[in-house]
Amino acid sequence: MYQFSQQSVELQQRLQAFMDEHIYPNEAAYAGYLHAADNRWAPVPLMDELKQKARDAGLWNLFIPPSLASFADHDGLSNFDYAPLAELMGRVLWSPEVFNCNAPDTGNMEVLMKYGNEAQQQAWLAPLLAGEIRSSYAMTEPQVASSDATNVELRIERDGDEWVLNGRKWFITNAMYERTRILIVMGKSDPDNPNRHQQQSQVLVPKDTPGLELVRPLTTLGYDDAPLGHAELRFDNVRVPAENILLGEGRGFEIAQGRLGPGRIHHCMRLIGIAQRSLELACARAEQRETFGRKLSQHQSVREDISRCYSEIEMARLLVLKTCARMDEVGAKGAMDLIAASKTSVPLMMQQVIDRCMQMHGAGGLTEDYCMAEGFNYARWCRQADGPDQVHQMALGKMIIKRFTEE
Amino acid sequence: MYQFSQQSVELQQRLQAFMDEHIYPNEAAYAGYLHAADNRWAPVPLMDELKQKARDAGLWNLFIPPSLASFADHDGLSNFDYAPLAELMGRVLWSPEVFNCNAPDTGNMEVLMKYGNEAQQQAWLAPLLAGEIRSSYAMTEPQVASSDATNVELRIERDGDEWVLNGRKWFITNAMYERTRILIVMGKSDPDNPNRHQQQSQVLVPKDTPGLELVRPLTTLGYDDAPLGHAELRFDNVRVPAENILLGEGRGFEIAQGRLGPGRIHHCMRLIGIAQRSLELACARAEQRETFGRKLSQHQSVREDISRCYSEIEMARLLVLKTCARMDEVGAKGAMDLIAASKTSVPLMMQQVIDRCMQMHGAGGLTEDYCMAEGFNYARWCRQADGPDQVHQMALGKMIIKRFTEE
Amino acid sequence: MYQFSQQSVELQQRLQAFMDEHIYPNEAAYAGYLHAADNRWAPVPLMDELKQKARDAGLWNLFIPPSLASFADHDGLSNFDYAPLAELMGRVLWSPEVFNCNAPDTGNMEVLMKYGNEAQQQAWLAPLLAGEIRSSYAMTEPQVASSDATNVELRIERDGDEWVLNGRKWFITNAMYERTRILIVMGKSDPDNPNRHQQQSQVLVPKDTPGLELVRPLTTLGYDDAPLGHAELRFDNVRVPAENILLGEGRGFEIAQGRLGPGRIHHCMRLIGIAQRSLELACARAEQRETFGRKLSQHQSVREDISRCYSEIEMARLLVLKTCARMDEVGAKGAMDLIAASKTSVPLMMQQVIDRCMQMHGAGGLTEDYCMAEGFNYARWCRQADGPDQVHQMALGKMIIKRFTEE
Amino acid sequence: MYQFSQQSVELQQRLQAFMDEHIYPNEAAYAGYLHAADNRWAPVPLMDELKQKARDAGLWNLFIPPSLASFADHDGLSNFDYAPLAELMGRVLWSPEVFNCNAPDTGNMEVLMKYGNEAQQQAWLAPLLAGEIRSSYAMTEPQVASSDATNVELRIERDGDEWVLNGRKWFITNAMYERTRILIVMGKSDPDNPNRHQQQSQVLVPKDTPGLELVRPLTTLGYDDAPLGHAELRFDNVRVPAENILLGEGRGFEIAQGRLGPGRIHHCMRLIGIAQRSLELACARAEQRETFGRKLSQHQSVREDISRCYSEIEMARLLVLKTCARMDEVGAKGAMDLIAASKTSVPLMMQQVIDRCMQMHGAGGLTEDYCMAEGFNYARWCRQADGPDQVHQMALGKMIIKRFTEE
Repeated sequence: MYQFSQQSVELQQRLQAFMDEHIYPNEAAYAGYLHAADNRWAPVPLMDELKQKARDAGLWNLFIPPSLASFADHDGLSNFDYAPLAELMGRVLWSPEVFNCNAPDTGNMEVLMKYGNEAQQQAWLAPLLAGEIRSSYAMTEPQVASSDATNVELRIERDGDEWVLNGRKWFITNAMYERTRILIVMGKSDPDNPNRHQQQSQVLVPKDTPGLELVRPLTTLGYDDAPLGHAELRFDNVRVPAENILLGEGRGFEIAQGRLGPGRIHHCMRLIGIAQRSLELACARAEQRETFGRKLSQHQSVREDISRCYSEIEMARLLVLKTCARMDEVGAKGAMDLIAASKTSVPLMMQQVIDRCMQMHGAGGLTEDYCMAEGFNYARWCRQADGPDQVHQMALGKMIIKRFTEE
Repeated sequence: MYQFSQQSVELQQRLQAFMDEHIYPNEAAYAGYLHAADNRWAPVPLMDELKQKARDAGLWNLFIPPSLASFADHDGLSNFDYAPLAELMGRVLWSPEVFNCNAPDTGNMEVLMKYGNEAQQQAWLAPLLAGEIRSSYAMTEPQVASSDATNVELRIERDGDEWVLNGRKWFITNAMYERTRILIVMGKSDPDNPNRHQQQSQVLVPKDTPGLELVRPLTTLGYDDAPLGHAELRFDNVRVPAENILLGEGRGFEIAQGRLGPGRIHHCMRLIGIAQRSLELACARAEQRETFGRKLSQHQSVREDISRCYSEIEMARLLVLKTCARMDEVGAKGAMDLIAASKTSVPLMMQQVIDRCMQMHGAGGLTEDYCMAEGFNYARWCRQADGPDQVHQMALGKMIIKRFTEE
Repeated sequence: MYQFSQQSVELQQRLQAFMDEHIYPNEAAYAGYLHAADNRWAPVPLMDELKQKARDAGLWNLFIPPSLASFADHDGLSNFDYAPLAELMGRVLWSPEVFNCNAPDTGNMEVLMKYGNEAQQQAWLAPLLAGEIRSSYAMTEPQVASSDATNVELRIERDGDEWVLNGRKWFITNAMYERTRILIVMGKSDPDNPNRHQQQSQVLVPKDTPGLELVRPLTTLGYDDAPLGHAELRFDNVRVPAENILLGEGRGFEIAQGRLGPGRIHHCMRLIGIAQRSLELACARAEQRETFGRKLSQHQSVREDISRCYSEIEMARLLVLKTCARMDEVGAKGAMDLIAASKTSVPLMMQQVIDRCMQMHGAGGLTEDYCMAEGFNYARWCRQADGPDQVHQMALGKMIIKRFTEE
Repeated sequence: MYQFSQQSVELQQRLQAFMDEHIYPNEAAYAGYLHAADNRWAPVPLMDELKQKARDAGLWNLFIPPSLASFADHDGLSNFDYAPLAELMGRVLWSPEVFNCNAPDTGNMEVLMKYGNEAQQQAWLAPLLAGEIRSSYAMTEPQVASSDATNVELRIERDGDEWVLNGRKWFITNAMYERTRILIVMGKSDPDNPNRHQQQSQVLVPKDTPGLELVRPLTTLGYDDAPLGHAELRFDNVRVPAENILLGEGRGFEIAQGRLGPGRIHHCMRLIGIAQRSLELACARAEQRETFGRKLSQHQSVREDISRCYSEIEMARLLVLKTCARMDEVGAKGAMDLIAASKTSVPLMMQQVIDRCMQMHGAGGLTEDYCMAEGFNYARWCRQADGPDQVHQMALGKMIIKRFTEE
C-alpha cells in the first residue's frame, strides 16, 4: 500500500544502521554526561562528534522538502518519505539533533528558507543548516491562551530604525541551550489594526540582546529536557534593528500559520518511534521476567496488552502517513482536518501505549534506566504543545459538522 | 496514498448512486414490513426486487476476488478494492444481501468455489451465486470454546455410503431464514486421529434433512437479525450421502482456516460504514437540535466527540485497508497479525463511535428510528463473532513477543 | 460504617429468601410466557400470583418513606434503608413489580401521596398502592430537549370546566401495559407566564380518554421492555375534568422537581443489583469454562476483569448509599450534587461491568439465556432516562466550580 | 452516614487551620530552597521549624492507632478517623513529614512498636517518634518480583554473634535522606527452609554500617522525591550484631504481612487529598481563564470534566473509608479484598483526575508552578509501589471468584 521513494528507503536503511552503530551504544554515555554536568544547558561533547558522523553519512537535514531542496545535500524528502525517518530518530529522544532534525530548529529553518531575506539567511540560516548554532521560536505567553496566535500580547513597537520588544514568553524550547543564538519572536506590532490577522509581526532577536532575560527553565512532569530546555523569558525594552523583521510588518500571523502543521506531525512521527521502541522493550521484558512460576509472556493479560500496543501503534502510524501524503498533495492548510486528527489522537494513544509498557517493567519502568518515562513525558507534553488538544478538537469538530451538513 | 483500481472507483460511484436511489429510500419500508410480518424468517418481498436492480446495475457478487473471477460477471476485486464497496453497503445493515454480498453466504460461496467439486458447485454454488438460495456455516457449539476449531464436538460418522451427524450448534447465521437451503457443517469425523488438525470434516447438509432441528432463534442485545437470524440447531442422526463431504475426510480444519480471515475483515469494513453513517447523522443532529439556548453543534463537548469519532473512524479504516493490501499480497495466513489487530480493534472502536453518536440523539438514538442501535449491536456482536477478542489478542500478543525477541 | 435499621436488615433477609424461593425459580417461566405471548402488553399471569405472595410476606410498597408511612403497612423506609432492598430487586429486572416497587409507579404514587387531593387519592392512589392498576408519567417529548422541564410543549388549555390537551409524548414507560389506567401528564397551561417555572401544570388523564392515542411501542437496543413498554403517545383534543389538575394550575414544574431525585437513585440501586448478579454469574462461568487447557478463572486477564468489576460495583454502591443518606438528611434538593454524581457515574460504570461479564460468557452472554444483555440495555438506557448524562454533568460541573470559587 | 469521632473532627479542624497558616504559605519557600540546594538530600531548614509548630499544636504522630496509644500524645486514631487527616496532609506532598506522618517512617515506627524489643525501641523508635531521625524499609530488589515477599534474595547469614548481609535493594524510600539513620532490611536467613514463609528475617541496619553503599538515587517520571528520595543500595558484607534481628529469626514474612495493608491505604488517602486539591485548582482556573470569548467554566466540556473529577474523587474516598472501617473492625488481613480494591482503583482514578486538571491549566499545568505534576507522578508511582496493580488484581480476582463459587 505504501511506496516510499527509493531515496527514502535507502535513507531508512542507512539511518537504522547509524542508530545501531552510533546512537544506541551511546545512550548511557549521553545520560551519564548530562547527569554529572555542572551546567545542564551546555552542549553534550558527544553531540558534536555524532553530528559530524551523521553529516559524513549523508544523514543531514533530512527534514528539508523537495520544494526547498536547494538548501539541502539531498533531493528533498516529502513529508511521507520523511515520516519513517523521523520515527526512527524518535526512538532516542535526543537523537534528532544529531541529524540536525530536531524541533524547533527544523521549523525555524523552514521559516528562514521561505520567508528570510538574503541577509537574514546568511546570518542565521547558514549556521543553522550547518548545525553550528540553535534557535528558538517564541510564541507562547503565560498570561493568554496563545494557541490562538491572535492573542499574543508581547509588544513590538517601532522606534526610529529599531523595533522595541516588551513582554513575556514561556515554554520557549531551546532557549536555555547555550548553543542557541537566535530567536524568532512573535508579537503585536499593530494591535489596533481592524484585521485581527495583521496585528502581528515576527522579528529576529539575537539571544544576547540586552533586555532579554532568561527567567528560568521550566519542567514538564519533572523533566527539564536539558540541554535544550523550555525557558521562561522576559523582554524588557529589547531593541533590534528594523531589518530584523521577517517578511514584513503585519505578516506574523501568516508566517505562524505556515509553520505549525508540519511541526505537529513531526512530533507524532517521533512519538510513534518511542512507542514502538517501548513495545519492543516490553516484549523483551515479557520473555525475561518470571512471576508466579511463569514468564510474563505467558500471562494472558500481558499478551492482551502487547496486542493492544501493537494495534494502536499501527493505527497511529497509518493516520500519520495518510496525513503526510495529504500534506504533500494539497499542503498543510488543505490537510488541516487530518493534522488535527493526528495531533489529538496520536500523542494520547502513544502515551497509553508507553504507560502499559512501563507498567510491565515494574518500578524500574518509571526510572531513567529506560527511555519510557521520558517518552511518556514527551507524549503527555505534546497534548499541550502547539495548543491543548481541546482547541484542535473544537476546530476539527466544527469542520466535520460543517462538512456533513452543508451539502 | 491509496490507489483503488479504476474498476473499484467506478463501482464505488455506481454503488453510491444505487444506495441513494434504491436503498436509503426503502429503509422505512423494509423495517415496516419486517415489523408487521407474521413470520419474521420469510424473505422481505422488497428484497427480490432490489436484487434484480442490483444485478442489472452490475453490482453483483462484488466480493469475488480476481483468482476466482471465472465465477463472476466482473474481473474480480482484491480485498483492497472491495473494502470501500463493503463499507458503503455496511451503511444499511440489510443491504449487503441486495448485492449478494452478505455474510455468511460470501464465505460459503468462496468455500464452494475453492473446495467444492463440480456436482456440489452445480447443486449449491450456482443458485447461491444467482441469489436464489441462502446458506449457513455451522461451526460454533454451545458447550465448547469453538473459537478453537479443534474443539468442535459434533460427530460425523460414516455409516455405509452415508454420513451420520449428531450434535448441537448455535449462532448459525442465516439458518432461520426460509430461503436458506444448505448448511456447511463442521464436525469430528476422526476424533482419535493423533493429528488434532485432521480430526475434522465439513459436510454439506440440506436444511430439510430429517433429524435437523431448528431449536430456536437467538438474540444479541435484543436483536434477532431477522430475516436471516442466528439459530440454535440440533442434529439427531442427520444422514447425508457420502459424496456430500467437502474436499475430503479429515480436511475440515484446513477449510476452516482458509475461510475465516476475509470474513473478519468484511465485518470490519461494514462496521466502518455504519459508524461513518452514525457520525454523519450526529453532525446533522448537532446542527438541528438546540439545548440551553444554543445548537448542540456549538457545545465544545459535542465538537470534541465529533472530532474523536472522525479520528477513530479514519484510523480504523486505514488499519483495515492495510490489512486488505497485505492479504492481497501474501494471503490471509501471512496477514494474520493485521487481521487479528483489525478484528480486536475495529469493532470495539466502532462500538464506541456509535455509542457517542447515539448519545447525541437523546433517547431516540436508542430506538429503531435510526440505524445506530442496530449498528451498535452489530459492533458488540463482532467482539464475539469468530471467537472472542481475547482469543485473538492472545495469539497476536504471542506473535508480537516472538517477533521482537527472536532476532 | 453502615448501620441499616433493624427493619431494613430484617426486610433484606426476608426479601432475599423470597427471591430465592419465588423469583429466580420463575425466571424461565416468565421469559417463556412473554416469548410465546400473542399480546406482549398483557399482564403475565404469574405476576399476580407472585404479587399476592409478596404482599403476604410483608414485602409490599417498600419504597414508601417514613414521612408517608401512613400509606404503608410498614414504618416507612428511608432512602438509605431502601437501597439494599432495591438492589436485591434489581437482580431480576421484572421483579420490582412483584413488590409494587417498579418505576414509574413508585414515583407516581409518591406524587399522589404528596400532591393528590382526597378524591384523586381515592380514585387512583388506592388501586395503585394495592397493585391493581398501573400508571404512567408523561413528560418527555420527541421534538424538544425535555430534560429541561420548562421546554415541554404539550398544550393544556382550559375550556369551561375541562382541560384540553394537545401534543406528543414519547418514552412513556408503562403506557403500553394493559394494566395501566392513569397518566400524569405534564404540559404548558400558561406558556406566556413571565415566570418560566409557572407555565406548566400536571393533570391526571385516564388512559381510555378519547383522543389519547398509543402511537407505537419504542425499543431501546432492541428491547421493548414488555409488558410495561415505552410508548409514543399523541394527545388530540384530549379532555379531562377541571378537577383532574394536580396541586393547582402553574405548579407542574414544582411537582416535577420533587419527583425526579429519588427516581434516578432507584435506577442506580437496581443497576447495582443487576451488575452484582452479572459478576456472580461471571465468577461461576470462570470456574466452569475451560479454554486452552485451563479454567477461565486461572487466566490472569479474567482475574483482572473480575477484580475491576468488584471494585467498581463497590464504589458505585457506596456513592449511592451516601447519596441516599444525604437525601434522607437534607432532602433531594440539598443532595442535588450527589444525585447528579450518581446519575452520571453509576449507569455508565455498571454498563461497563456488565459488558465485561457478558464478554466472559462468549456469544451466549449476549442472548436472553442470561440476564446480562437486558441489564446492559437497562444501564445504557439510564444514561438517557431523566435526561442525558451531559445535562446533569453540566449542572454538576457548574455547581462544583461555584463551590470552590465563591468562598 | 459517617461519624468521625469527636477527636478526629477536632483534629481535622486544627489540621486545616495549620495547613492554612503554616503549610500553604510556605510551599514556594520550600520548593525554592530545594531548587537552589547544593545537596538535595539534606533536610530543608524550614522543616524543623514547622515540625516544632506541629508538635506544639498537638498535630503529631496522628497515625498511631488506639491499640498503640501508649506511644502517642493522643488517644490513638482508628484508620477511619485518621483517613480525613491523611487526606488533608496529602494536599501538599511534603507536609506529612511536618506531622511525623510520612511514609515509610509511619510503617517503620509501627513495626518497632509492635515487634521491637525494649533496646531496639529505645535506640530507634524513640528518636523516630520524636522526629529526630528518619528510617527506611528495604524490601524491593531489582532482579526479582519482590511484590511476592518470598522472592527476596538478599542474604542474611549468621556469623558468630553477627548477621552478615549481602545483596541489592532498590526504591528504598528515605535512604537518600541525610536524616535517615536506620534501615529495616528484609532478607533470606534460611533459604532452604521447606516453609517458604519462614525463610525470611528482618534486621535493623544503621545506615552508616560499613559495606552499605548508596548506589544512586532513582527517579520516577523525572522526580527524585528529594530530600527523602528513592535509593538503590548495595550490601557488601554488611555486619550487624545478632541482637539487631526483629522479632526473631525466620519471622520476616510475618512482619512484612502486617506492615503493608495500612501503608497502601495511607497512600490512597493522600492521593485523594492531592486530587481534591487539583480539582479545586481547576475550578479556580476555569473561572479565571478565558478562551474564544468565554470563560473556561462556561465550556460544556470543562463542566463535564469537573463533574467527572468530583464524582471519581467521591467514589474513591468512599471506598477508602469503607476499607478503613473494615480494617478497624477485622484487621488488615480480614480486609484484604477491600485493601486490594483500593490499591488498584484509587491511584489509577486519581491519576486520571489530576491529568484532567493539569490539562485545564494549559502547558503550565505540567510544571512545578502547581502541585499537580508531582501529584500525578505520585499517583502513577503508587500503581507500582507495594507491587504492581496486576499482582493485587490477581489475588483479588481469585478471592472473588472463590467467594461466589464455593457456597
